[in-house]
Amino acid sequence: MTDARLARQIAFLLEIDGLKSVLRQSHLIDLSRRENDAEHSWHLAMLAVVLGEYATEEVDQAKVIRMLLIHDLVEVYAGDTFLYDTRGVAEQEERERAAADRLFPQLPDDQAVALRRLWDEFEERRTPDARFARALDRVQPLLLNFYTRGASWRAHRVTKAQVLARRQLIEDGSPALWEYIQVMIDEAVRRGYLLP
Amino acid sequence: MTDARLARQIAFLLEIDGLKSVLRQSHLIDLSRRENDAEHSWHLAMLAVVLGEYATEEVDQAKVIRMLLIHDLVEVYAGDTFLYDTRGVAEQEERERAAADRLFPQLPDDQAVALRRLWDEFEERRTPDARFARALDRVQPLLLNFYTRGASWRAHRVTKAQVLARRQLIEDGSPALWEYIQVMIDEAVRRGYLLP
Ligand SMILES: [Ca+2]
Repeated sequence: MTDARLARQIAFLLEIDGLKSVLRQSHLIDLSRRENDAEHSWHLAMLAVVLGEYATEEVDQAKVIRMLLIHDLVEVYAGDTFLYDTRGVAEQEERERAAADRLFPQLPDDQAVALRRLWDEFEERRTPDARFARALDRVQPLLLNFYTRGASWRAHRVTKAQVLARRQLIEDGSPALWEYIQVMIDEAVRRGYLLP
Repeated sequence: MTDARLARQIAFLLEIDGLKSVLRQSHLIDLSRRENDAEHSWHLAMLAVVLGEYATEEVDQAKVIRMLLIHDLVEVYAGDTFLYDTRGVAEQEERERAAADRLFPQLPDDQAVALRRLWDEFEERRTPDARFARALDRVQPLLLNFYTRGASWRAHRVTKAQVLARRQLIEDGSPALWEYIQVMIDEAVRRGYLLP
């Protein structure tokens, strides 16, 4: 425990343990409880492993996975913002940027810079990798919602129009997945999971 | 939802949602509850992102991360086996192999073969990538244990000798991390987290 670099890295890895306690609005498929950010990040990385072939443009899978693993780290300080919470979403950017300024510098400088750059790339979605990662980040909660019979949609009285208003991120990153999701959304309305 | 390949991939991604409900013996740092396999897998992938420089031999980081993301998938059927449960560990291999035979073929053939191969590689630890991944899989619960003042060690009356008996996996994958962990184990005994 004498190496200062390793000690900082370990301290960072302990700090982000807090992500396991940041609850999201999505429910687990078995409806036993709500999902947390750490599980969500793992599940997204698995989506990247399995669904990589549906990216609009060729992507660097390894980078997409790293991006998804770290994309929610800032929520260890900033908390989760529900997609359909309009006020929360407005302040979210500032809150998350402040959290990033606080979190990443806890790593040794080279890693702090590298992870911050990766997080910024995800946020700015100017690269194919970021656009695909962002699409998966939208697809996963839709899947959980549909397969829990709209548990969080119904709790928040979400409408089809609200879901469609956020379609662009999915469409940009993966037209194929958007096509699939579109059918699912219509089916969700038919089944009463989602308000028309 | 008409594309059969995509439908199989989505079904697999929903099936592995069950990993979020497989509890391990480790406790979260804040001691609020026990950790589950999905969170553990995410945390391990983050260890691979941050601690890659300590691998014995040069590793393919992307592959190590993929390996760690999927290494516990079989526990969706086989459940978690506590490291110090001698009887459980003896039957574990067979149980997990049966679970792998059941789980991976739910994916399209090409992906079933690729993920099974990756899982086998982790299990057999014949490559530097697998040895480093296995070392991280041992290091993470030790960290959680130490920083929860030995919560699961104390619950199971684990001794230093029991921990040391399993040192080889860490030493093989990362002598530098083993050196750090060794100091931590002695400190754990001094503090009464671990029986001498
Ligand atoms: Ca395990």
